[in-house]
Amino acid sequence: MVDLLGGADILAEHECWTVLAGEEVGRLAVVANGKPDIFPVNFDSDGASIVIHSNLGHKLLSAAGADVAFEVDRIDLASKLAWSVVVHGPATVEAGDHPGSAWAGPKDFQIRIDPLSVTGRRVFLRSAP
Amino acid sequence: MVDLLGGADILAEHECWTVLAGEEVGRLAVVANGKPDIFPVNFDSDGASIVIHSNLGHKLLSAAGADVAFEVDRIDLASKLAWSVVVHGPATVEAGDHPGSAWAGPKDFQIRIDPLSVTGRRVFLRSAP
Repeated sequence: MVDLLGGADILAEHECWTVLAGEEVGRLAVVANGKPDIFPVNFDSDGASIVIHSNLGHKLLSAAGADVAFEVDRIDLASKLAWSVVVHGPATVEAGDHPGSAWAGPKDFQIRIDPLSVTGRRVFLRSAP
Repeated sequence: MVDLLGGADILAEHECWTVLAGEEVGRLAVVANGKPDIFPVNFDSDGASIVIHSNLGHKLLSAAGADVAFEVDRIDLASKLAWSVVVHGPATVEAGDHPGSAWAGPKDFQIRIDPLSVTGRRVFLRSAP
């Protein structure tokens, strides 16, 4: 079993942006009617903000103008290393397709997160004996 | 680029539990001080509830007695298939180690989610031309 509770290093913010740059799927957490909700999302990052590709719907409406949390992680069982990055900040909604995703087909909207905090951990996995 | 916005099938609840049974890492979303937060977590599932292994801290305190959301996903680029499952429900905190994780080292607490809803999607990925 992968054990995320093993020893961990804190990632510096520039390390967080570096690992984010290599990923394209994360999870967006929002508050809707006072309760948490969570969505897997496609995203781009540029070292300063997160841009999530979205169609019109519950996810977009819950994020628009609200504080959100966004998480990306990767687990490498071979190296027994894992990392996760969490971004907190206000989200704004932009209409129109983002240039970085044009080849993937049109999306109607982007959710942009302007981070108030970017935190990350690198975890050394323990595994079953 | 992986595109989660491609065509999707809805998973039946029993299919959701089947795919959850093969996974051990998910993400927990909570509301803390009115804002969303998100944590990667180790979990077990038994077809009826989700048990998350946790130490004492912000994650545990935010989840205890509250409504939470929990998400697990997997992306298989080779088959161009992905799925995600989202569980919503109230969380309760239990002290003491869960038998299923004993070999992975002791944990102080478990966060149990008794689902009010279990929903899933299977996504057919589009990829770059």
